[in-house]
Amino acid sequence: MHKVIFDTDPGVDDAMALLFLHRHPEVDLLGITTVFGNASVETTTRNALFLKREWKIDAPVARGANETFDPARASEEEWPTFVHGEDGLGNIDVPEVIDMPVDPRPAYQFIIDTVRAHPGEVRLVAVGRMTNLALALRHDPEIAGLVKDVVIMGGNFRVPGNVTPVAEANIYGDPEAADAVMTAPWKVVVIGLDVTGVTTMSRKYLADMATEGGEHVELLNRISQFYIDFYAHMVDDGMLVHDSCACVYIVAPQLFTTQGGPIRVVCGGIADGQTIQKPDGFFFPPGDWDNLPNQLACIGIDSDGVLSLIRRTILTA
Amino acid sequence: MHKVIFDTDPGVDDAMALLFLHRHPEVDLLGITTVFGNASVETTTRNALFLKREWKIDAPVARGANETFDPARASEEEWPTFVHGEDGLGNIDVPEVIDMPVDPRPAYQFIIDTVRAHPGEVRLVAVGRMTNLALALRHDPEIAGLVKDVVIMGGNFRVPGNVTPVAEANIYGDPEAADAVMTAPWKVVVIGLDVTGVTTMSRKYLADMATEGGEHVELLNRISQFYIDFYAHMVDDGMLVHDSCACVYIVAPQLFTTQGGPIRVVCGGIADGQTIQKPDGFFFPPGDWDNLPNQLACIGIDSDGVLSLIRRTILTA
Repeated sequence: MHKVIFDTDPGVDDAMALLFLHRHPEVDLLGITTVFGNASVETTTRNALFLKREWKIDAPVARGANETFDPARASEEEWPTFVHGEDGLGNIDVPEVIDMPVDPRPAYQFIIDTVRAHPGEVRLVAVGRMTNLALALRHDPEIAGLVKDVVIMGGNFRVPGNVTPVAEANIYGDPEAADAVMTAPWKVVVIGLDVTGVTTMSRKYLADMATEGGEHVELLNRISQFYIDFYAHMVDDGMLVHDSCACVYIVAPQLFTTQGGPIRVVCGGIADGQTIQKPDGFFFPPGDWDNLPNQLACIGIDSDGVLSLIRRTILTA
Repeated sequence: MHKVIFDTDPGVDDAMALLFLHRHPEVDLLGITTVFGNASVETTTRNALFLKREWKIDAPVARGANETFDPARASEEEWPTFVHGEDGLGNIDVPEVIDMPVDPRPAYQFIIDTVRAHPGEVRLVAVGRMTNLALALRHDPEIAGLVKDVVIMGGNFRVPGNVTPVAEANIYGDPEAADAVMTAPWKVVVIGLDVTGVTTMSRKYLADMATEGGEHVELLNRISQFYIDFYAHMVDDGMLVHDSCACVYIVAPQLFTTQGGPIRVVCGGIADGQTIQKPDGFFFPPGDWDNLPNQLACIGIDSDGVLSLIRRTILTA
């Protein structure tokens, strides 16, 4: 069993990823930690509780950061409501308040305590900004040696970004946090736009899943319609399943090809939020990637295999 | 006829590029301007004069910059003698002094005067740092509207750099100058590592050219041996002909595929010297690439065609 903490900002693609983790028989979901990004942390926490209630997920929800790791960065002006809807879940009229308990600890403390309770076992899957993970490292640097690995959705290596020519939204939203996470002495696997940008689920594929899967999958289908409409400029009547890719990596890494090498994130300037790997086998004069842990960047994916596994898993009621 | 000013820091691959321009029947070489980079500007100017004398080139030589466009940048500590030799021409014992006149003007003034003498006609081919071009723009911004185009060897777009994971040497050596050149209102074509890094001339190919071409090509062959030895870690007994690719583009652009979009250069931070294009067809929120001229980045090359044209041209005595 893979013991997973899911750090998330639901978020439409986050919802699919959560249902995947919840239903995969080899995943033991220890907790859901929320972060700002696709919406404010109030909204993403509310949405996590809503999905927990609707899908009858046992794992606790802990509320996380609502501002960047370095508070000197300008705070958020606008949420990407054109992608995820006003409610962060595709404008399905999520109730304003979900009357369920939230874990009393901030997300970073929940992460620290849970990692320490299962030394060497916890896999952190982070599909929003890296703020909670960076805060956990700051408050308890020793957890780096106690986590099994960190799998993130974010960044881009050989393809353009999605918010600037070189930056992807999760990293761009908190570059200092991402740089702290990438350079910490734990094993990080980065699932970025190189692979998530080519992994498309069509509207029909999802609708067929909903027909077969009943009301829980029908909810996912309803949540996803607004997001599919948003992707009309990039995808032929479908959606990119960004966050689910990181979750699939947990159970099926053989569906991905990776490239090793230390990874850093640019903080400031026109390349702000760019994720840069010094790939193994390339040699440069001494520089900013020296003496850092070797991480994995995903550069290839079996998209059909990933979609098929998502389908099979979500239909395992 | 293509009226060309060749801005260069010879430099071994610069020497081949110069002989190509000198011998191509459709190129009218108006001048050679030197810059620091592969060696100090004293050395690169001496080398330009040496090649001018040996190859009987009529074009004048004007000495250029020996420090970065922004003098606040740290000055050069060491020259890349492990690539181009102590003399900058592959350790062939270039005489210490070449007793030939240098144009009395600094390179940037030579560029300004020559462009103004041939409005709309001059093609600037720059294969070293962009310092002289940036200085020319600063002293006379109107030349941007009077130059036919600017073809540079430098940068990288979809492949790693050669001095950092994201930066190529010519750009890294003076990022502020390169950013000024890329963003000026003239047409820039960037021939970078994406295409020069896959265009290899073998030792035997060059030796055969020398056998056929006589003493002038034999000199080029001698100059290139040290450089070919340096490339042993990347290339199977051969060399990358970086600078010649930019010169080939002048006469045979059909051998290249390009991608349009504004281009900027990162100044400072871990991505210092990175060349970033916002490719046409990609859309991002308002940002640092807005309202800038559309430039061309080369992303594909017919390497065999390029080598064959270099050979045919250099053997046209």
